[in-house]
Amino acid sequence: MTTAAPANELRTEALDYFKPLPSTVPAVSDNPITPEKIDLGKALFFDPRMSASGVFSCNSCHNLATGGDDNLETSIGHGWQKGPRNAPTVLNSVFNHAQFWDGRAADLKTQAKGPVQAGVEMANTPANVVATLSSMPQYVEWFEASFPGEDDPVTFDNFAKAIEAYEATLITPAPFDAWLNGDDGALSEKQTAGLRLFMDSGCAACHSGVNIGGHDYYPFGLVEKPGAEILPEGDKGRFAVTETVDDEYVFRAAPLRNIAVTAPYFHSGKVWDLGTAVAIMAESQLGADLSDKEVGEIVAFLESLTGTMPAATLPVLPAETGSTPRPSGEVQ
Amino acid sequence: MTTAAPANELRTEALDYFKPLPSTVPAVSDNPITPEKIDLGKALFFDPRMSASGVFSCNSCHNLATGGDDNLETSIGHGWQKGPRNAPTVLNSVFNHAQFWDGRAADLKTQAKGPVQAGVEMANTPANVVATLSSMPQYVEWFEASFPGEDDPVTFDNFAKAIEAYEATLITPAPFDAWLNGDDGALSEKQTAGLRLFMDSGCAACHSGVNIGGHDYYPFGLVEKPGAEILPEGDKGRFAVTETVDDEYVFRAAPLRNIAVTAPYFHSGKVWDLGTAVAIMAESQLGADLSDKEVGEIVAFLESLTGTMPAATLPVLPAETGSTPRPSGEVQ
Repeated sequence: MTTAAPANELRTEALDYFKPLPSTVPAVSDNPITPEKIDLGKALFFDPRMSASGVFSCNSCHNLATGGDDNLETSIGHGWQKGPRNAPTVLNSVFNHAQFWDGRAADLKTQAKGPVQAGVEMANTPANVVATLSSMPQYVEWFEASFPGEDDPVTFDNFAKAIEAYEATLITPAPFDAWLNGDDGALSEKQTAGLRLFMDSGCAACHSGVNIGGHDYYPFGLVEKPGAEILPEGDKGRFAVTETVDDEYVFRAAPLRNIAVTAPYFHSGKVWDLGTAVAIMAESQLGADLSDKEVGEIVAFLESLTGTMPAATLPVLPAETGSTPRPSGEVQ
Repeated sequence: MTTAAPANELRTEALDYFKPLPSTVPAVSDNPITPEKIDLGKALFFDPRMSASGVFSCNSCHNLATGGDDNLETSIGHGWQKGPRNAPTVLNSVFNHAQFWDGRAADLKTQAKGPVQAGVEMANTPANVVATLSSMPQYVEWFEASFPGEDDPVTFDNFAKAIEAYEATLITPAPFDAWLNGDDGALSEKQTAGLRLFMDSGCAACHSGVNIGGHDYYPFGLVEKPGAEILPEGDKGRFAVTETVDDEYVFRAAPLRNIAVTAPYFHSGKVWDLGTAVAIMAESQLGADLSDKEVGEIVAFLESLTGTMPAATLPVLPAETGSTPRPSGEVQ
């Protein structure tokens, strides 16, 4: 009973910044989520034939076995080309205000259309995706069941909507959620000390909300710019989206759920150690020089954001037919 | 009752050639299969960090979502290099007499060591695999539980044994098994006609046993060599293993389970249509010119070999630590 009061106090303060995950799959705009659509989206998410080469699926870079990302600085894609930015985790991404490091996609259905067409990623075209899907009767049936009443359900828009529906189910409740929901024992003493520090030193000013980030844009290097290795000069972040000088080197605050299992860090993917990343952030964003003990406490708190994966059973995908476009690994 | 006699007769004859899948995971030599070892093997099978680049796992080319193979002529691997031969399905591979198209690996634990080291596939080294696994405490625990009593369980040999244990569980009972086991209704009339033809025209001379192939070696082009596109002159098959002239262009008879969902065909992967593949085989191996109707019946029979996938739930893999070797996409 003696610790109840401080825990409650800390929780009240924390609930001003953070929100626990909801217990159900959230609704998304203009895309009613149904079991049929989730199943179709899962099939599409795992299907490497959505890439021109037949090598990459969504799951290649957003691997559900490894925290929803690919553990690479930047992804390797079509023709062994490197992507420009670190692949973010797909887990809980439905709770981000917008998608991509620069927020250029308003939602997951818009995001899903990006990598599949990017020349350095899946290098496909909407027409070829639709031709591939239309060539397999089982896929056509799944689209019909997922988009009932539509004359022509096998479209690139519906492809993206189904993926969004599946991704919306990828939610990972974590010890921090249990703690926010009232379970004092869900965090260790070191973790609550880290949480305290995370709020008091200013981290929570940007990394807040249900995803502890992911909802607004901030300049990287607010107080002091990190070196060009970590913040490459050629990548001006949100400036490319808004073409506003104020948005130079502005990025969406990284959502921090599962951060402990999704190294390497930052849009450049240049930092592999979470403590190092925390120290860089403190210095560049807050002008704070954290002690090793403080960094350790914040890292311990961040580890409480590692959630439980929903069981993901691999789909059994339809086989190609005579009219399925053949894979091509050629680089244009 | 009128059809019972012919069905039984056909079944008796078929059981001279074929065996249904067993109902349990088969024992493998020198590798007791335990639940712990299966779970570890599954983690390794799905872990892209077993490749030098961090891009490819076993599942990349032996994708359990698409029939246990990759639907490519030949696989694309490290540095976007192309493998020399079509990736065979991992499903039911435990029942093959030996592994690879030329049988150069006696069993799955020997096979598992190949792709991980091949420069055009995963391009890794045994030392780097062991260093990667040893760097993650969860993996060390899993190896300890899988190989109890061993002083140093995290070895490349045990890595391969665990993968073999998991792969031994990838068994797909098919309608043909149900039919062999006595269920007359499991095959259609067209399929039993195809089975009849498959035996009478000589296909079953090489494609027999529990895997309908996979157990012995035969020259490709026994009666008439197919064109160089299908049988590339540079690939002399088992000759590279035995260095015996008799083994020029000799390959292991392809196991035919799930053949209808694992196009493209032959070691060259040059034929996408199953009917075309059947016609080529009939001509080159048997000197037979099958009618379209006959080809259709054999294809219908082969479709009865498409089995039910065991449910494969993605593993949750351990996160890297500070001592985990970093991925490298560099091509040596």
